Amino acid sequence: MLPLIKGPRDLDRLGPEQLEQLAGEIRSFLVTEVSKTGGHLGPNLGVVELTIALHRVFESPKDKVLWDTGHQSYVHKLLTGRQDFSRLKSRGGLSGYPSRAESAHDIIENSHASTVLGWADGLAKANEVRGKDDHVVAVIGDGALTGGMAWEALNNIADAKDRPLVIVVNDNERSYAPTIGGLANHLATLRTTDGYERFLARGKDILGRTPVVGKPLYETLHGAKKGLKDFIAPQGMFEDLGLKYVGPIDGHDLEALESALLRAKGFGGPVIVHCITEKGRGYQPALQDDADRFHAVGKIHPDTGLPIASSGVDWTSVFGEEMVKLGKERADIVAITAAMLQPVGLDRFAKAFPDRVYDVGIAEQHGAVSAAGLATGGVHPVFAVYATFLNRAFDQVLMDVALHRCGVTFVLDRAGITGTDGASHNGMWDMSILQCVPGLRIAAPRDADQVRAQLREAVAVEDAPTVVRFSKGAVGPAVPAVARIGGMDVLRRADEGTADVLLVSVGALAPMCLDIADLLGKQGITTTVVDPRWVKPVDEALAPLAEQHRVVVTVEDNSRAGGVGSAVSQALRDAGVDVPLRDFGIPSRFLDHASRAEVLTEIGLTAPDIARQVTGLVAKLDGRLAHSPTEAARD
Amino acid sequence: MLPLIKGPRDLDRLGPEQLEQLAGEIRSFLVTEVSKTGGHLGPNLGVVELTIALHRVFESPKDKVLWDTGHQSYVHKLLTGRQDFSRLKSRGGLSGYPSRAESAHDIIENSHASTVLGWADGLAKANEVRGKDDHVVAVIGDGALTGGMAWEALNNIADAKDRPLVIVVNDNERSYAPTIGGLANHLATLRTTDGYERFLARGKDILGRTPVVGKPLYETLHGAKKGLKDFIAPQGMFEDLGLKYVGPIDGHDLEALESALLRAKGFGGPVIVHCITEKGRGYQPALQDDADRFHAVGKIHPDTGLPIASSGVDWTSVFGEEMVKLGKERADIVAITAAMLQPVGLDRFAKAFPDRVYDVGIAEQHGAVSAAGLATGGVHPVFAVYATFLNRAFDQVLMDVALHRCGVTFVLDRAGITGTDGASHNGMWDMSILQCVPGLRIAAPRDADQVRAQLREAVAVEDAPTVVRFSKGAVGPAVPAVARIGGMDVLRRADEGTADVLLVSVGALAPMCLDIADLLGKQGITTTVVDPRWVKPVDEALAPLAEQHRVVVTVEDNSRAGGVGSAVSQALRDAGVDVPLRDFGIPSRFLDHASRAEVLTEIGLTAPDIARQVTGLVAKLDGRLAHSPTEAARD
Repeated sequence: MLPLIKGPRDLDRLGPEQLEQLAGEIRSFLVTEVSKTGGHLGPNLGVVELTIALHRVFESPKDKVLWDTGHQSYVHKLLTGRQDFSRLKSRGGLSGYPSRAESAHDIIENSHASTVLGWADGLAKANEVRGKDDHVVAVIGDGALTGGMAWEALNNIADAKDRPLVIVVNDNERSYAPTIGGLANHLATLRTTDGYERFLARGKDILGRTPVVGKPLYETLHGAKKGLKDFIAPQGMFEDLGLKYVGPIDGHDLEALESALLRAKGFGGPVIVHCITEKGRGYQPALQDDADRFHAVGKIHPDTGLPIASSGVDWTSVFGEEMVKLGKERADIVAITAAMLQPVGLDRFAKAFPDRVYDVGIAEQHGAVSAAGLATGGVHPVFAVYATFLNRAFDQVLMDVALHRCGVTFVLDRAGITGTDGASHNGMWDMSILQCVPGLRIAAPRDADQVRAQLREAVAVEDAPTVVRFSKGAVGPAVPAVARIGGMDVLRRADEGTADVLLVSVGALAPMCLDIADLLGKQGITTTVVDPRWVKPVDEALAPLAEQHRVVVTVEDNSRAGGVGSAVSQALRDAGVDVPLRDFGIPSRFLDHASRAEVLTEIGLTAPDIARQVTGLVAKLDGRLAHSPTEAARD
Repeated sequence: MLPLIKGPRDLDRLGPEQLEQLAGEIRSFLVTEVSKTGGHLGPNLGVVELTIALHRVFESPKDKVLWDTGHQSYVHKLLTGRQDFSRLKSRGGLSGYPSRAESAHDIIENSHASTVLGWADGLAKANEVRGKDDHVVAVIGDGALTGGMAWEALNNIADAKDRPLVIVVNDNERSYAPTIGGLANHLATLRTTDGYERFLARGKDILGRTPVVGKPLYETLHGAKKGLKDFIAPQGMFEDLGLKYVGPIDGHDLEALESALLRAKGFGGPVIVHCITEKGRGYQPALQDDADRFHAVGKIHPDTGLPIASSGVDWTSVFGEEMVKLGKERADIVAITAAMLQPVGLDRFAKAFPDRVYDVGIAEQHGAVSAAGLATGGVHPVFAVYATFLNRAFDQVLMDVALHRCGVTFVLDRAGITGTDGASHNGMWDMSILQCVPGLRIAAPRDADQVRAQLREAVAVEDAPTVVRFSKGAVGPAVPAVARIGGMDVLRRADEGTADVLLVSVGALAPMCLDIADLLGKQGITTTVVDPRWVKPVDEALAPLAEQHRVVVTVEDNSRAGGVGSAVSQALRDAGVDVPLRDFGIPSRFLDHASRAEVLTEIGLTAPDIARQVTGLVAKLDGRLAHSPTEAARD
């Protein structure tokens, strides 16, 4: 039946049994296809019925159906004309998130959580200004409600009693980890109210066999006022904010979902529809896994859920293991995660020191500011977070941690190009925005040994924030140093002592930089390769070293705009060293999803590309020097 | 009596009448002193009794008393040994916020709102880790509760039922503007409950004349269980989150405050004490002003509250007037403020177009993400915000607005050095962190005409975010252009056509740059001065122009780290132009409070300082060119 669904309106003519069948087909499709490519499996298995119901009740794309943290949009894609998942998240294939380029049904491409209510508020306000009566529907997980943005938006949405907006809370009791905090407890209370139990029981009896074609179910329910009043009742804190509350609804009961959504659609003001869903629904390996490893998977065996290939030791594990060692050595070290205990490698630390780890929810701002409080209180927090998500806490890193000279260590996982998750998951911003934070120090370890060593150096700093940033995936072989100058490791030194080019290598790009040096050597250009290890502040030994070379080249896995290259350039200017410099990094644009290698090739961040450009520059300088007397004569 | 209070413990021996007298003295002191210096008047008049009660019940600095948005800490300063307000906010005088350098009683120096609950959560966790039983007390306004950070923190605080932490909600129904949103409505409901009215009435009768020395009031109240139960009752959404709720309390009734705080202190878990206060209490000019102009004042006549000197036309007004014109011309322009309608100059727009202005609360994240929604919905939002507060919305500017190519205009008021409000109010970060945002354009108008012109250019951009940033205070006289090259205004051209120095002037520093050119001229150095107007992206005409000069100098009112100078330097490198460049701006450190002029002098951002350095550089280049053949021979 699935192949017959070319768009949402094809759902209108299906009866209850056909819809059930469709839901089953979608689940099989997801398990089969996502097993082949990798992707977000658990969240999508949980929203099959909800997505069907949304597209039956609302008229996308005229009505705007918005998905928070778009990884729960696979079913939405299947129902809006996108059923070729063979190249999911690969170059040229479907994005793992909604994409405006793919479909008019997609609005929010960003995969950072908790944004959807703000978007919905803006779209609803625009409708009001323009006199339009389109519906705006925002789907948000219970985990994402722990983010401050969601609260800011709820507070605004609740303020306009007659501006229609439907909020669907997809409550599966987890974000990545189980959802934490007071809100989670409150939702749990709602889930276990008598009303819900009674509704489920009664719903089965009264509505179980009612034919549902188009709107009759709603009419039926609408007649049964008494039944409705029981389950559509304002509840607790949402009511305190002035939001109508509908629920809780069994998120796998299509009839219940449709009736609730129809009721919400007709309400004429902001309303919350609270749906209880089961993450990984219908897929035993996911349901049996407490650690939620099926939230996002690589390639797996569809029957067992076991990964097809192990990717070797990854950066995350190296960090996670060292944290356990540090935890044993120092009782004052605590760890913080924003709802990603396992993905950032803190699960082992949590097991060893359960009282010294804090999962703050999807709340990077709180992660950072509470870290300032922890440090001021005399302990040393290590906040491990995906590099791209630290953007959420920039103000707190600056004004709370740095201004107060707090010894807080930020560990940025998935820094640099991550590739397949697309523009909003690349960790290409941190070394730009953090440059202006006074006192903050940034380490970019190049291999596993350096992760361990620099993490130790970082947690030893008690009067300033430190950052340790590393890549996604498997860590490469060790890259040994041949010497040290200042705090910098020399990775390659020209035989003759001096060299043409000083190559400044940042983090995991060290092997590529050594390749560049090899390629330059074939052109007769000699190269010194240094890894500064700490890229902020710029090592004081760098300027004198640069002065001994004809060209300085920096290579980093970060936006070129305001990155390490810019900082090195400024440090040289400040030292009065005007040796020409070229900085290589990520261009200032949003990058489409593709593998890391494909992206690096596309943006020219490869050894041959860089070697070619440096060769050209050196040739130009040779020419200029030949003309130098003429130039001097000009003045 | 006030001069006798050398520290919080001096409060212990005072009886009720003496405390009343002290409160009166403090109010007189504040009106008299702040009238002379300027400062935050209204908020501090509102917390006199609250601060006295806090310092009687808790033992600062062993117990940590934390102030959100520290401008409400003047009374706290008076009670902790700081009573010389003669140089408040001036160089060498008291800071307008708490300051660790001033006193061990101060913890949070940062003046950005909504942080205190996160700090408190961190400090309480540290106490737990270290086995300490100090109390942590956080004072937060109702306005600051609209910020997402507060929600993230409440959600975490509520999760630990046995970790003691006292949250005092100082509810005066306003932030700068009246507090908005669902939360405000909920607080209003709490304020008007029967229980509150009855408590106030009964409190007057029963407790009015009870002697209060040390703790007897608490004993009395503690005995009167029935009375207590009426006003100490869990309420609404705070209870839903799992937080104990005490209140509402009359925030000007010392006895009621002390009894509530004592109860909260002994509770052994997280508890909210809801105090109702009156901003501007006891000062008629403040109480009669609906626009809350007494939140922060310049020098005023203490009796009338009228300002002593008008400062001329300011940047804010120029923007505000042009917005009204634009609003008349374009029905699709809407305005957004984060609880600062009047300070950012949107009050006139709001009066003219009440349905097209959105006050989102102290919620910059929501301001930005809802702007993305508004733009996607077909209108053009202008979000006016202090430059330093945009840091809160960096992720949303990047991932929601820029990634989705939304036509949103951010107007950054108080950009550059603002001075007297200290480190966290200087707007010195925006041109650094925004450099890496793909597609975003930044305008830095140099005078009133350019504010108007560039605002119009900004709102004409519909497929990318635009930023218009300007200074605090009076706008200077017009600085005319003598020519235009590319999109850049030429402000000064050397008579001979070519010149030694290309001086790139950013925004309001144009007059200073003309002064630099004059000073260089006296040394025989010729200078071209250009104002790029749009500083991001770097104008394509800049590199060819730079190539015609021997030195490029950039001058900006922003952090040097990753600022306009770095961007210009990179653009020149990318164009293969290796003319030496020197970039002048704000050094990468947090700046103490002082006047703007004093700060600029201190950091060397003055015409004489810069001219001196540029002269030195040119002399060095002259020397190098003389030696040029030798250098060439070296290779």
